[in-house]
Amino acid sequence: MLYLIGLGLGDAKDITVKGLEVVQRCSRVYLEAYTSVLTVGKEALEEFYGRKLILADREEVEQNADNILRDADLSDVAFLVVGDPFGATTHSDLVLRAAKKGIPYRVIHNASIMNAVGCCGLQLYNFGETVSIVFWTDTWRPESFFDKVKKNRQNGMHTLCLLDIKVKEQSLENLIKGRKIYEPPRYMSVNQAAQQLLEIVENQRVRGEEPGGFVTILVAVVYRGFIPIILPTDPINLSVLVEIICLFCPLFNHHYFSTQITKAGKGQPFSHSTRPSLKRHFVLA
Amino acid sequence: MLYLIGLGLGDAKDITVKGLEVVQRCSRVYLEAYTSVLTVGKEALEEFYGRKLILADREEVEQNADNILRDADLSDVAFLVVGDPFGATTHSDLVLRAAKKGIPYRVIHNASIMNAVGCCGLQLYNFGETVSIVFWTDTWRPESFFDKVKKNRQNGMHTLCLLDIKVKEQSLENLIKGRKIYEPPRYMSVNQAAQQLLEIVENQRVRGEEPGGFVTILVAVVYRGFIPIILPTDPINLSVLVEIICLFCPLFNHHYFSTQITKAGKGQPFSHSTRPSLKRHFVLA
Repeated sequence: MLYLIGLGLGDAKDITVKGLEVVQRCSRVYLEAYTSVLTVGKEALEEFYGRKLILADREEVEQNADNILRDADLSDVAFLVVGDPFGATTHSDLVLRAAKKGIPYRVIHNASIMNAVGCCGLQLYNFGETVSIVFWTDTWRPESFFDKVKKNRQNGMHTLCLLDIKVKEQSLENLIKGRKIYEPPRYMSVNQAAQQLLEIVENQRVRGEEPGGFVTILVAVVYRGFIPIILPTDPINLSVLVEIICLFCPLFNHHYFSTQITKAGKGQPFSHSTRPSLKRHFVLA
Repeated sequence: MLYLIGLGLGDAKDITVKGLEVVQRCSRVYLEAYTSVLTVGKEALEEFYGRKLILADREEVEQNADNILRDADLSDVAFLVVGDPFGATTHSDLVLRAAKKGIPYRVIHNASIMNAVGCCGLQLYNFGETVSIVFWTDTWRPESFFDKVKKNRQNGMHTLCLLDIKVKEQSLENLIKGRKIYEPPRYMSVNQAAQQLLEIVENQRVRGEEPGGFVTILVAVVYRGFIPIILPTDPINLSVLVEIICLFCPLFNHHYFSTQITKAGKGQPFSHSTRPSLKRHFVLA
């Protein structure tokens, strides 16, 4: 049996009891490590589960799926995914391959940012299309995610923005030359994402397009253990940046907030110290 | 400390390890029992957790929240919610009350139908507004949820439909007379939901409105243990009802399906035997 097991969003203990039992009895346990990351590393998971984990990077999953599926019809194999196994459709391919080989499989669900974002107090029913904000390069600066945010806003919907993760990526040069040399991992910060969005707003204004009644609140939701951290900003005015750290924040207005106002000059709207954990997701309300 | 703990969607073992540890050390443990239900009952949870649970119905949570919060600043109190605590905003109120009283709280997330619906193979990013399909009465037959589905389709988005649950509700007569007599619990079946949708399509046609290129696939996702069951139908043609039961269904086209075609005459489109567990959620693709 192939088990696809969600690990949730916090640390080792966010796995379900059912998931943990399966992990402990499987013959091989893979940890998918390229679509998302936990705040704890592989070693912490291994210690808690009492099992060695095999890191499965993009190449392994997309090109060598047969390795993962080997003998899964005879013994149990677990494939661990941060969040929920189907938060993104990436892993449907593995399931389809298993089905093709006659290997049975089960899914053990867990929290994903797709539902846990409800902790910021915005009504989960009113989220529109989820967008991914990708790292811009010198030559590739797509604006399509911004148009989706605008469309959601026109329809009165919130937007969950997923921030880019680059793990085990080759540089263009190394890719062309076929050299398997990988760049260091990169995780887009909320600041980087906001900076790209602001540039698009500026670009659209220059081109005479209407960027829309864009962005009233920008909320970052990050998990540190099971404590979500919320960071609302007002990136349009560029004058005030409010950093809010709290245990939980329904509707942004209760007294557990500890706020810290930082003035930021134009051109450097996000010059305050970036917390390393402020990455991965944010919400446009 | 007040802990809001998600129980996930299946059975007792779908709680996280972190959640279970908290449940076992809290002085009181409440089980919220009116926004959703697990496939296992209170007794099965009590046996697995090794704890007595206090059932919290709508009245208790909405009108007697102080009971739940009593002494939570001095000892730990757990509030268990099927799925994730913030799948709906219903429980933000309890959190706000806790904050007002200076009671700290933590959220332990879990899978919700809002993200686990990804197991049907549809891309989670492309879901639009979630709708609730409510039980119609003789005098109250709202069509607003249908208009939201139409709007999602116009925007190329899928719709997750949540089906109505009536637990501990008073009849209008008993409500007016102030008699605390409650109706038996009711859970809308997929068939009932589909029947209401079909009536709306018919009503809109009669009124000369365009019901839209409505409904190509209707997918019900239900959890029995951690096995989702998928039921696509074609409610427009009313001629063929395909019941599909599978372990997992990415894109509706792999060979784990066991299909059963049932002819159904007009007027009785959903006359096949309804599985009692086919309730709670479905998806319009």
